[in-house]
Amino acid sequence: MDETPRTGNASILDGNSFKAADAAALPPRARDLVERRGALLGPAYRLFYRRPVEVVRGRGAHVWDADGVEYLDCYNNVASIGHAHPAVVEAVHAQLATLSTHTRYLHERILEYAEDLLGTMPGLDQVMFVNSGSEANDLALRVGREATGGRAWIATSEAYHGNTALVSAHSPSLSGSEAMDPALRVVEPPDAYRHGSAEAAGAAFLAAVRVAIEDAEATGDGLAGIILDSSFSSDGIHTGEPGMIAAAIELVHAHGGVVVADEVQPGFGRTGEAFWGYQRHGLQPDIVTLGKPMGNGYPVAAMAARREVLEPFASARPYFNTFGGSPVAMAAAQAVLDVIRAERLQARALATGDVLRAELRALAERHPAIGDVRGAGLYTGVELVTDRDAKTPATGQALRVLEELRERRVLTSVCGPTNSVLKLRPPLAFTPDDVPRLVEALEGALAAVF
Amino acid sequence: MDETPRTGNASILDGNSFKAADAAALPPRARDLVERRGALLGPAYRLFYRRPVEVVRGRGAHVWDADGVEYLDCYNNVASIGHAHPAVVEAVHAQLATLSTHTRYLHERILEYAEDLLGTMPGLDQVMFVNSGSEANDLALRVGREATGGRAWIATSEAYHGNTALVSAHSPSLSGSEAMDPALRVVEPPDAYRHGSAEAAGAAFLAAVRVAIEDAEATGDGLAGIILDSSFSSDGIHTGEPGMIAAAIELVHAHGGVVVADEVQPGFGRTGEAFWGYQRHGLQPDIVTLGKPMGNGYPVAAMAARREVLEPFASARPYFNTFGGSPVAMAAAQAVLDVIRAERLQARALATGDVLRAELRALAERHPAIGDVRGAGLYTGVELVTDRDAKTPATGQALRVLEELRERRVLTSVCGPTNSVLKLRPPLAFTPDDVPRLVEALEGALAAVF
Repeated sequence: MDETPRTGNASILDGNSFKAADAAALPPRARDLVERRGALLGPAYRLFYRRPVEVVRGRGAHVWDADGVEYLDCYNNVASIGHAHPAVVEAVHAQLATLSTHTRYLHERILEYAEDLLGTMPGLDQVMFVNSGSEANDLALRVGREATGGRAWIATSEAYHGNTALVSAHSPSLSGSEAMDPALRVVEPPDAYRHGSAEAAGAAFLAAVRVAIEDAEATGDGLAGIILDSSFSSDGIHTGEPGMIAAAIELVHAHGGVVVADEVQPGFGRTGEAFWGYQRHGLQPDIVTLGKPMGNGYPVAAMAARREVLEPFASARPYFNTFGGSPVAMAAAQAVLDVIRAERLQARALATGDVLRAELRALAERHPAIGDVRGAGLYTGVELVTDRDAKTPATGQALRVLEELRERRVLTSVCGPTNSVLKLRPPLAFTPDDVPRLVEALEGALAAVF
Repeated sequence: MDETPRTGNASILDGNSFKAADAAALPPRARDLVERRGALLGPAYRLFYRRPVEVVRGRGAHVWDADGVEYLDCYNNVASIGHAHPAVVEAVHAQLATLSTHTRYLHERILEYAEDLLGTMPGLDQVMFVNSGSEANDLALRVGREATGGRAWIATSEAYHGNTALVSAHSPSLSGSEAMDPALRVVEPPDAYRHGSAEAAGAAFLAAVRVAIEDAEATGDGLAGIILDSSFSSDGIHTGEPGMIAAAIELVHAHGGVVVADEVQPGFGRTGEAFWGYQRHGLQPDIVTLGKPMGNGYPVAAMAARREVLEPFASARPYFNTFGGSPVAMAAAQAVLDVIRAERLQARALATGDVLRAELRALAERHPAIGDVRGAGLYTGVELVTDRDAKTPATGQALRVLEELRERRVLTSVCGPTNSVLKLRPPLAFTPDDVPRLVEALEGALAAVF
């Protein structure tokens, strides 16, 4: 495993990855599955871990492998309200047994869900449904360009917004292998750990956004706006302090730009402090994009927008999405919203996340490799360093910690420009009872690596 | 309703469309739903028909509206093996209640399905899973460019391949409102009706493709390849004769281009004569893209490819698709393949389609407005004309025929450059018993309009 610290653009997709050379050490069944994958799915498909996990069953924040071994899932935010949640299972079953069709016929479900969803987003009036966060962002980037006449989007330096051609070209985390859009402006994320405070990080972010705007305007590209994940997940989870990025966002608006809040990561109550990540920062975006957790495993995604911003695109382009907004997708999405409220998952995320980070900070007092513990609700980053004063990224060690966690039946991954930040993003079904197990596993993993 | 015959680039999306002015004539519930749609979903969302249908339930080739009125569905190919097919419903339910997660963990379902699917496509070795035909084509266009180093794709003049930025720019049917890719070369489809024979249409298509290739090579764009729906659905359903387009495809290969068969329309047995539309023409594509019918209403899609064509892209780009290839998507897709075989749907499509077109040709002898009846299996185009000798498109009348069919409880739509071709594409659950009802409804509709 490569232990060289990388200095940026470590793909979010190769931080925690099985390598072909690991195959020889696998038991026969895993080796067979790995070989069939390579033959049938080709080289783009990656696996987590040196010893990949064959997950066959899930429930709540727990999954089981083919041998019946149970794991604590601290990573998956698709099964956000809990793996195989019965409310979603039954809602999908009932609707799929009744009707699944497109939006060229009238159906009440899409309207009921649209009303419910938009009710959580004051300031936004309309929503379009798609199948993935990638499709949502592809649409958002075009809507914003049409609304402003500008070409230039601003994004953060390790951002990942999806896999279509247009969105890949606006995902700087892929810039090692993908050509970026010629008009894209890249800014550093607000890293309170390295800037020393959220205030300083917010000021640096504001300054970087100002330079990007002025450059976009000066070159004639014109400003389209900014697209950002307000938890800066791929950048290393920079939740900072509420309001930290508000001034930068105001500046984009002052220059006529469109603000796209990509809520694929922080949305649906995860940060605990607000239902949407952008609300935690007191922002008013023009467009909000949704993906992964929206259907708890059923493919559904959306782009909500201010009417005035959507209108130039939507009235001119005959955009249609066959599966988007089907009654089954809406049934899944409605069940997710209902469960978040009924089980008070946002409040639980807030409380549980605070407990978790308190325990992790206590652990940090005994382990100098933990340089920083940060987060909000059930979204936590643990930055590992080889030197606390110099804040030197412990990239290779972080990857080994992951493997050690996996051996201790705790699933997670890494993020950030040097893949040195443990990304703890469990299903919201994760409870305070799960905290000791995670912290003990991490303590054991750190002892094994450092 | 506009009765002016259009001379091309009639969007496939505005042929059969509710207009705001129709709202006043609607009953209260429909008017309320229409108004809520406009407010909540914005102007991109279109409805079929002056009197939109509120579909609430489906089974086989039949759907029911909110008042309990039953309709014969002659249009939807998402519910391709039949609305609410119990095999798909139960497969999705069982897997969703067990596990729905991404492909970074091992799971056998994706491998079993990949083996089964690729077994139907000799010559292709690998497959990647996505959520929609749009995502599949977005990926295919990039894979083909990477494999060839060329930029220029060839597509037909009314083709629609999907809704992402890249795919929209390669969908000439959208060229009235979307900027096309600067390297795109557009060719006329092989229209055997207007050329007088499939042979003449094939020769004209070959000549057009030759011009496109030479132009792409001469300008330095370089040839990426051709993307085509071998049933030319949006172009007006030009099934012609098997082999009609083989020479043009061979020419693309001879010039080093990649051939992408978009099977979203003709695939999964619909044409009756082969499992895939391209096989009906004896073609060997390098890439095959799948969408709508693959999961019978569950969002799943795929791109299959020759290993050598996929490798340059897939080994260099960290493409990942969160929902694509999940165990639930694979369960739905496997159930569809199993049902097509168990219920012998391809053979039924062949037999039923022949019965249908024989009846439609008999009808044409009594109705001069029917200029042409064409198709293969359960994919039939009925071209309406105001003058048989001049083959003058009956655009406005075709739209009125649609409305009359809807009043007779038969659902379908139109296609082609002048929206004058009735597009009969029922679920494969459509049986010979449904034929008389469709033909009688059409006879009544024609009598009402002409």
